[in-house]
Amino acid sequence: MMYEKLKAEVCSANKELHALGLAPFTWGNVSAVDRENGVFAIKPSGVAYDKLTPESMVIISLKDGSVVEGEFNPSSDTPTHYYLYKEFGKLNAVVHTHSVNASAFAQAGRPILRYGTTHADFSYTEVPCTPALTEEEVKTEYELNTGKVIVKYFNENNLDTDSTPAVLVRSHAPFAFGKTASDAVHNAAVLEIVAEMALKTEIIGGKVAEIDNYLSDKHYFRKHGKDAYYGQK
Amino acid sequence: MMYEKLKAEVCSANKELHALGLAPFTWGNVSAVDRENGVFAIKPSGVAYDKLTPESMVIISLKDGSVVEGEFNPSSDTPTHYYLYKEFGKLNAVVHTHSVNASAFAQAGRPILRYGTTHADFSYTEVPCTPALTEEEVKTEYELNTGKVIVKYFNENNLDTDSTPAVLVRSHAPFAFGKTASDAVHNAAVLEIVAEMALKTEIIGGKVAEIDNYLSDKHYFRKHGKDAYYGQK
Amino acid sequence: MMYEKLKAEVCSANKELHALGLAPFTWGNVSAVDRENGVFAIKPSGVAYDKLTPESMVIISLKDGSVVEGEFNPSSDTPTHYYLYKEFGKLNAVVHTHSVNASAFAQAGRPILRYGTTHADFSYTEVPCTPALTEEEVKTEYELNTGKVIVKYFNENNLDTDSTPAVLVRSHAPFAFGKTASDAVHNAAVLEIVAEMALKTEIIGGKVAEIDNYLSDKHYFRKHGKDAYYGQK
Amino acid sequence: MMYEKLKAEVCSANKELHALGLAPFTWGNVSAVDRENGVFAIKPSGVAYDKLTPESMVIISLKDGSVVEGEFNPSSDTPTHYYLYKEFGKLNAVVHTHSVNASAFAQAGRPILRYGTTHADFSYTEVPCTPALTEEEVKTEYELNTGKVIVKYFNENNLDTDSTPAVLVRSHAPFAFGKTASDAVHNAAVLEIVAEMALKTEIIGGKVAEIDNYLSDKHYFRKHGKDAYYGQK
Repeated sequence: MMYEKLKAEVCSANKELHALGLAPFTWGNVSAVDRENGVFAIKPSGVAYDKLTPESMVIISLKDGSVVEGEFNPSSDTPTHYYLYKEFGKLNAVVHTHSVNASAFAQAGRPILRYGTTHADFSYTEVPCTPALTEEEVKTEYELNTGKVIVKYFNENNLDTDSTPAVLVRSHAPFAFGKTASDAVHNAAVLEIVAEMALKTEIIGGKVAEIDNYLSDKHYFRKHGKDAYYGQK
Repeated sequence: MMYEKLKAEVCSANKELHALGLAPFTWGNVSAVDRENGVFAIKPSGVAYDKLTPESMVIISLKDGSVVEGEFNPSSDTPTHYYLYKEFGKLNAVVHTHSVNASAFAQAGRPILRYGTTHADFSYTEVPCTPALTEEEVKTEYELNTGKVIVKYFNENNLDTDSTPAVLVRSHAPFAFGKTASDAVHNAAVLEIVAEMALKTEIIGGKVAEIDNYLSDKHYFRKHGKDAYYGQK
Repeated sequence: MMYEKLKAEVCSANKELHALGLAPFTWGNVSAVDRENGVFAIKPSGVAYDKLTPESMVIISLKDGSVVEGEFNPSSDTPTHYYLYKEFGKLNAVVHTHSVNASAFAQAGRPILRYGTTHADFSYTEVPCTPALTEEEVKTEYELNTGKVIVKYFNENNLDTDSTPAVLVRSHAPFAFGKTASDAVHNAAVLEIVAEMALKTEIIGGKVAEIDNYLSDKHYFRKHGKDAYYGQK
Repeated sequence: MMYEKLKAEVCSANKELHALGLAPFTWGNVSAVDRENGVFAIKPSGVAYDKLTPESMVIISLKDGSVVEGEFNPSSDTPTHYYLYKEFGKLNAVVHTHSVNASAFAQAGRPILRYGTTHADFSYTEVPCTPALTEEEVKTEYELNTGKVIVKYFNENNLDTDSTPAVLVRSHAPFAFGKTASDAVHNAAVLEIVAEMALKTEIIGGKVAEIDNYLSDKHYFRKHGKDAYYGQK
């Protein structure tokens, strides 16, 4: 029972994801890491959210992605989570959903541009959209390669999961990141609102320009970083 | 009381359909087959979902579509269900709805294309849209001809209800298929999400290409068939 | 206490309208007629739905539109209802809402075309959109003139409220008709779904043709009139 | 405990805003003024709506915007509210949200035009959209300058918060005004419906003309001002 607290946190965040309407049926998973013990906890595959208990969470090794503890199969997306934690050393929690508006941008192969302050409150950059996986990347180790495509895109574009808390995998769906499992779920929820707002902005305004960096900076740093002044101390 | 279990399953699936918001008022019906006894059970026509009981389900003969048991008129769409079960020997359950996004594609006379993995998780092919019924097909035995148009389209295009679990009838609305009544309801629900996502993908991306077969295959066979590795054993 | 049953019916239908989400705040009203006694009952103006009681309904004379009974002001739209009952001798109940999708068609000045069977199940014709009221019609007896514009449009186009159970008043919003107060509320609800479906059909399909009369006839007469075979006897 | 009634009103209105779905997470704030005592009450920053109590509201001086009473930091948007109360001498309550449809118009940089009577029932004018803040206005005293941009736009265009009960701040989101905190929340809710209706009107009708002044006047003055005849005396 080493990972009791971690499992409870991840179980609760998975239920929260479902309650927010972001993951109908069994379509979504949350994981969170315990770097000290070199593991992360993740949702079991294909189990209904209302059946989840802390005990049913699966513990995965950060060394090689193998199951350390758990009676169920882990989420089939586990190798994606594993690779993200391995490569992004400061990443604490990952959420995957197929939320409708964000997935529609992924399907259209377009990033979600910074059209306003709701976006800037949440993300310092656009929500990027990765390139498509190649045929070989799909056919062999698909889920691991999904992680690789994200990591490669972030590295090539100097992005980090702190200031870019969500990404769209081309033709697939979003992943969101967070400081805790609950924070990652929050980011997945905000992403879906920001995506709907962006879609409607384009319907209303056609080809709308992104906001200026000074406005984006103002909103982002009002809520994030050492000079943030939103909320309570 | 021969068909007690079948009636209970079909009653419960009809209520589930309504609870999911897929069938407002009395607009939708679920049936499921018992091939051993040569019958299927279906919702009574025009009865509110909260009034449904297992006893009120109607039992129909697979031989000629006649009522075998039941005090109510069966759904007016019964001949469609009958014809589908008769011609598709492996089909176990059928759902008909007028869910908004899927029906909008049917009204526009367009299939729902495979724009992403949410679609591929659910269906191996596009969700096809049948041709319109002719004037004569509408005027005589309309509901039976609705079944015939679906069957003809599936046969001509080498489709089966396992890998193509939903179809749009032109100018009308969707039918969904399943291994059980509950599975068919699930497919009707997923179809509606996939339709909304496809609609929004087109708003965002304009003329978007379908995903490659290797990606579609990967997602479909991850969840379906003998090599599926999604979920628990 | 002559009109107890009528008041109870109209009160309950007003609450149903609100519960269905068709009338947020105080935006909508239902009335129903008692032709034998030459009166109709209508919602009081600007009163919240959860405060409505049968006693608070207002009774209006069919002779001159004056208040016969009731301690509250009647809906400000009362003269519209009055004129509709006066001119449409078979009309039993009227609903007015500002439901979003139907009102958007009214604001765009376009009828809701018959794009599919969901429409045809409900209305034999398109949902027409009246011409705009003239400046004079707006400035003097606006609500009465709203009724006049509807009646004139129906008469000039040989429409009746039985087979055309809803209409859009240009730049304003819909009115729906019914055999009972509850039936009119049902039609207002169906109208809103049909409007959303039509909007999405146009997004998906662009300039979509209306369905053929034989399909529309089939669906309409399956549910309406002496040869209807939908539902129970 | 001087401001007990004001704090209770503002607390309750903030909860109402959240319950109406207009402010997910902590994204929205309501304030109301007590001009006699020269203060206004506002939501504390970043506190969840279900944790709000009247005691947690923050009292701000109308003289200089400083905190008069309260153990929490006030909303980070407090200087905007402060400036609006200072310059608009008849303004009683202010609401700020990031509601999706209204914010989409703000992001597209477009006012919400008067397309129909639902709009005219609520606002005498279009819902204006301010110019963008300059880089300097963003970098120094951003929230105060947000108030200044609104006030300047209203003054230059002879608008007042009575007949123009809402405004969009370019690239940001809406502010709504009211006679009481609850009335301002109501206006924020109506704004969101009117924005959705306008968006859909443009999808359906393309370039739609605004309604004529006589129709707008009729609806606005039916509900507002000394000759209003909507509702009860």
